[in-house]
Amino acid sequence: VILLFTDFGAGGPYVGQMKAVLARAAPEVPVVDLMADLPAFDARAAAYLLAALAGDLAPGDVVVGVVDPGVGGARDPVVVAADGRWFVGPDNGLFELVLRRAGAARWWTVSWTPARLSASFHGRDLFAPVAARLARGGRPPGSERPLTRNRRQDWPDDLAEVVYVDRFGNAMTGVRAAAMAPDARLEVGGREIPAGRTFSDVAEGQAFWYENAIGLVEIAVNRGRADRALGLAVGVGVDITT
Amino acid sequence: VILLFTDFGAGGPYVGQMKAVLARAAPEVPVVDLMADLPAFDARAAAYLLAALAGDLAPGDVVVGVVDPGVGGARDPVVVAADGRWFVGPDNGLFELVLRRAGAARWWTVSWTPARLSASFHGRDLFAPVAARLARGGRPPGSERPLTRNRRQDWPDDLAEVVYVDRFGNAMTGVRAAAMAPDARLEVGGREIPAGRTFSDVAEGQAFWYENAIGLVEIAVNRGRADRALGLAVGVGVDITT
Amino acid sequence: VILLFTDFGAGGPYVGQMKAVLARAAPEVPVVDLMADLPAFDARAAAYLLAALAGDLAPGDVVVGVVDPGVGGARDPVVVAADGRWFVGPDNGLFELVLRRAGAARWWTVSWTPARLSASFHGRDLFAPVAARLARGGRPPGSERPLTRNRRQDWPDDLAEVVYVDRFGNAMTGVRAAAMAPDARLEVGGREIPAGRTFSDVAEGQAFWYENAIGLVEIAVNRGRADRALGLAVGVGVDITT
Repeated sequence: VILLFTDFGAGGPYVGQMKAVLARAAPEVPVVDLMADLPAFDARAAAYLLAALAGDLAPGDVVVGVVDPGVGGARDPVVVAADGRWFVGPDNGLFELVLRRAGAARWWTVSWTPARLSASFHGRDLFAPVAARLARGGRPPGSERPLTRNRRQDWPDDLAEVVYVDRFGNAMTGVRAAAMAPDARLEVGGREIPAGRTFSDVAEGQAFWYENAIGLVEIAVNRGRADRALGLAVGVGVDITT
Repeated sequence: VILLFTDFGAGGPYVGQMKAVLARAAPEVPVVDLMADLPAFDARAAAYLLAALAGDLAPGDVVVGVVDPGVGGARDPVVVAADGRWFVGPDNGLFELVLRRAGAARWWTVSWTPARLSASFHGRDLFAPVAARLARGGRPPGSERPLTRNRRQDWPDDLAEVVYVDRFGNAMTGVRAAAMAPDARLEVGGREIPAGRTFSDVAEGQAFWYENAIGLVEIAVNRGRADRALGLAVGVGVDITT
Repeated sequence: VILLFTDFGAGGPYVGQMKAVLARAAPEVPVVDLMADLPAFDARAAAYLLAALAGDLAPGDVVVGVVDPGVGGARDPVVVAADGRWFVGPDNGLFELVLRRAGAARWWTVSWTPARLSASFHGRDLFAPVAARLARGGRPPGSERPLTRNRRQDWPDDLAEVVYVDRFGNAMTGVRAAAMAPDARLEVGGREIPAGRTFSDVAEGQAFWYENAIGLVEIAVNRGRADRALGLAVGVGVDITT
């Protein structure tokens, strides 16, 4: 399976153009929109979401990750292999947390250049063809490099910020629920948010945090919008104390 | 064909995660987003839309319906067979109108539990695997139950409310056009809306109602937005008199 | 590959219903959403986008184009063959620029009528079945007509207007970058916009125009929103002078 993970938006012509490339280059491989509305330009927020979503990937899966404000500039295109799954995209930290949590990882700088390489859309021209090649059993078209190069050492293991707000107003953070101490307290803007198991366990209109379906701490309001009730948006910090 | 019918939104990671599960479990079955932006939490509105859309389904088709505010709570997961088509989802009325209009129907409570069952995302963990199983010719993994249990007897056969507003501002109601008497009058907020055949038959800016492509009474304005012109939104009632 | 090019929106039930028809009629052909959020009702803007996107199509590809405010009225359904690629949709100018730029083109009026033809959704009932037929190697079900009939002679070769605004606020125009003279100047509302190669070449917050990945002149702001900064929206004109 090839999974697209981008900030291109659910609309627009970008995801469609990538899918057209993949349909020609690897017609036998299913292509899934893992996520198309990542926070725009925010490779860091996306990195924590990707690491959480990666738990469900199977060996041989290929993620094409495109949150790429530096497209056309000096950043390298890279391929990462992490526990048997492939990740293709820009070298801007997008795969940092996947790498950090992997049991076995390798990293390549892509040296292949397509016949046509636009300045602004490497997702279509470079990353999608490389993904098709990997999905069909090919090798990364480039040279392997040390895993220590260009790493984001300053990014925390868990990011105590909102990294995504979904359609319902639920706010996912970059913190793994498994990293929360049993007596941890979570506050937003000085207001403590109690823990809960899931929506149906709390009263309507009640704010709570819970371990969401990809293992992240998520702040929600049962049948309401946590983003509006609590002033949450991508980048807003949460306070976790014990 | 497996058809996804959810309130998850066109964006977000939820539909993608379900598709990844389906691509692994039933790679030979096409998966179609029948609708991803159903009114949030509103199983009743969705039930009338689903019954209207179900007219185009073919024998063997499987609809995964997820409008599930009670996920993780006491509601059962169910499988419905209606005129040779399958429906998988929560037991919250989502399939009530499909059942009511079916010539032949059966109903099962799902007793199978996956190895991993998150508290908040049964669409991915439970309904999608069951749908894959049905699409591949398997039986519902649970016990059959009487068709009379947990039915929504108080829901009308046709719902005189707006159940969906589309991108153009057209407002679909839960009323079948075939259920309108020849001399029926339709009013919104005390204003009578004339009937029309389709957009190109009325003047620009003119409000009218017509039988839409899935057989429902829909209120529209030619090249305009009926929602803004008439104050329509999901849940707003329309008055039908003869 | 069958590519859907519509103004139906990323949400809603329309694209899904078309895909369900295609999954039944041509299950072996990949279907891609080339674009679902074209400017509503605006066949002219869409025509310039389609001609730009058509550069990447392969022989045998079938585009189903549905921007069709006149559906159910007198306009004909048509099939266009342009340089080996097929286009199916309404005869309202949507394929005008594809035709004008094609090396070899033919044109048919569709005379086939499906068993069910709704008044408002020819995308599902007429265009999708015809597209499936063409994708499987069939002939256009109608009669060929002169290429000169019903053409939009008054539409320019390049349209100096915004034809699409993407998720990031970048504004695509209907002008091919290749049609810009070397010393051409581009102004928006009296303000000159300098040319650039791509985002990473200009300072943050800087407005510029560049040749986008489908060859069009696009106005952008690095890590900002050109639409808000410059008051751009679909239909807003740009001034190009030499």
